Amino acid sequence: MLGIDWGTSSLRAYRFAPDGRVIGRRDTPRGILTVAPGEFPDTLRAVVGDWIEDGERRILMCGMVGSRQGWQEVPYLPCPAGLDGLAAAAVAVPFPDADVRLLPGLSCRDRHGVPEVMRGEETQMLGAAMGDGETTICLPGSHSKWARVQDGRVIDFTTHLTGEAFAALSAHTILARMMNDRAPHHAGGFERGVARSRQGGGLLRHLFGLRAAALFDEMQEEEAASYLSGLLIGHEVAAALEDGVAPPILLIGADRLTARYGAALAAFGIPHRKADPDAAAHGLWRVASRLA
Amino acid sequence: MLGIDWGTSSLRAYRFAPDGRVIGRRDTPRGILTVAPGEFPDTLRAVVGDWIEDGERRILMCGMVGSRQGWQEVPYLPCPAGLDGLAAAAVAVPFPDADVRLLPGLSCRDRHGVPEVMRGEETQMLGAAMGDGETTICLPGSHSKWARVQDGRVIDFTTHLTGEAFAALSAHTILARMMNDRAPHHAGGFERGVARSRQGGGLLRHLFGLRAAALFDEMQEEEAASYLSGLLIGHEVAAALEDGVAPPILLIGADRLTARYGAALAAFGIPHRKADPDAAAHGLWRVASRLA
Repeated sequence: MLGIDWGTSSLRAYRFAPDGRVIGRRDTPRGILTVAPGEFPDTLRAVVGDWIEDGERRILMCGMVGSRQGWQEVPYLPCPAGLDGLAAAAVAVPFPDADVRLLPGLSCRDRHGVPEVMRGEETQMLGAAMGDGETTICLPGSHSKWARVQDGRVIDFTTHLTGEAFAALSAHTILARMMNDRAPHHAGGFERGVARSRQGGGLLRHLFGLRAAALFDEMQEEEAASYLSGLLIGHEVAAALEDGVAPPILLIGADRLTARYGAALAAFGIPHRKADPDAAAHGLWRVASRLA
Repeated sequence: MLGIDWGTSSLRAYRFAPDGRVIGRRDTPRGILTVAPGEFPDTLRAVVGDWIEDGERRILMCGMVGSRQGWQEVPYLPCPAGLDGLAAAAVAVPFPDADVRLLPGLSCRDRHGVPEVMRGEETQMLGAAMGDGETTICLPGSHSKWARVQDGRVIDFTTHLTGEAFAALSAHTILARMMNDRAPHHAGGFERGVARSRQGGGLLRHLFGLRAAALFDEMQEEEAASYLSGLLIGHEVAAALEDGVAPPILLIGADRLTARYGAALAAFGIPHRKADPDAAAHGLWRVASRLA
């Protein structure tokens, strides 16, 4: 069996042994933004064609490949939803040499009726969540996700535009002049930013404070980008905690990001642990084992 | 007497009769960003040279012209500060045919020690504020200012990066794809954005909600930019109100912006009124009448 986590900017492929062990993995920059309409089958073959020739006949895919800009749009599955629901909603797409299926993403609405969506993160979350009871999962990124997972089902979730806001604000406002965004991570600056997020006044005011501090030589160029990162992540964490969480928070993602979120959570006094980095592979395997 | 409000992107010149009436005005795009170092005297002459030839010998200037990037840096005057303090801190700069003085900006610190700065807005505020007692003034823009003014002195103030955040987020995130930023103002979309800002969850989450609503056809392209504007202004107003205000809020600025802030304040149930559009001129005249 092959499992593919095909997102906006990357394609990660896993090959499984019959017992679920990962026996092959590939990480390529062939995200759906790099694939022209109609070229998804050829792109898939370019990445895992040799595994197919080797006899693999089942391919399960999750992520943005199931969006309107992907191979074929698969409607969102409303929460609460778990592995059985994802398996039942998988959609087969034509592919000559194998049974290829796309998983849906999930949707929910907050108590004000505003919608939320995810594609791919649900598979990572359900691959990482263990046992019964309630877990709060945080999956940081351009669009950070926070989800409540209970008894193997995603109950509901929220999304924060944190990563994209960092990129836009650090490069396209007056803050760009006072920061070196290629500077290495500055732990002290990050901590200052998290601490500031916990003071009153709101994010928009905290953003200008960065500028004013630089005018008084109270913000050095090498710490400013990390301060901004801490400020934004701190505001995200504060908002997520308002919704209530079940510690320890389970963090899923690359070390670089989960370390920052771990530091922010620690500043808030919230215990956390890091998920197995192969969460997506585990989730794909678990869904595949439920497919008819 | 000539008064000049010389900001980042514009230069506004006023000519006063001996009784303080404005008898001439010029509004040019010669903001300090368009002026090379050393060319400030020539630029001033290009804009008001005929008034000088006509006999004007006193010129008072406020705004970013007194910043590090301006004609000459004038240190910030700490709050509380009023007209007398500004007059006493004015700095003369060499200019052959007239007595030219630059006013300082103001600074303060919040209770956590984080600095705030303004240059030019203080002159508008002190030109607009009338009588005794406490007034809360809002001066919207790229860097919106909220100030408490009491008995003719700016007590303290806050700055919100609202206008710049709008520009960066609307053009440089995924939100850019779903909005027409040349669409006319959409009052319904703006109101929806303000209403959303008053619900929990934080600004970063509210930003992603815009994207998700569009995926469900619950956000039209022609209202999205106004929704984003309402969302950001609503978050700014909510943060400012937390600090406590003395209604009615006095709004200073161009109609296009003050109308939006007025609508947001109305949604929060806060009375407001609009200041005389010549607030900067009044402030310059009031300071000039206190100069030695």
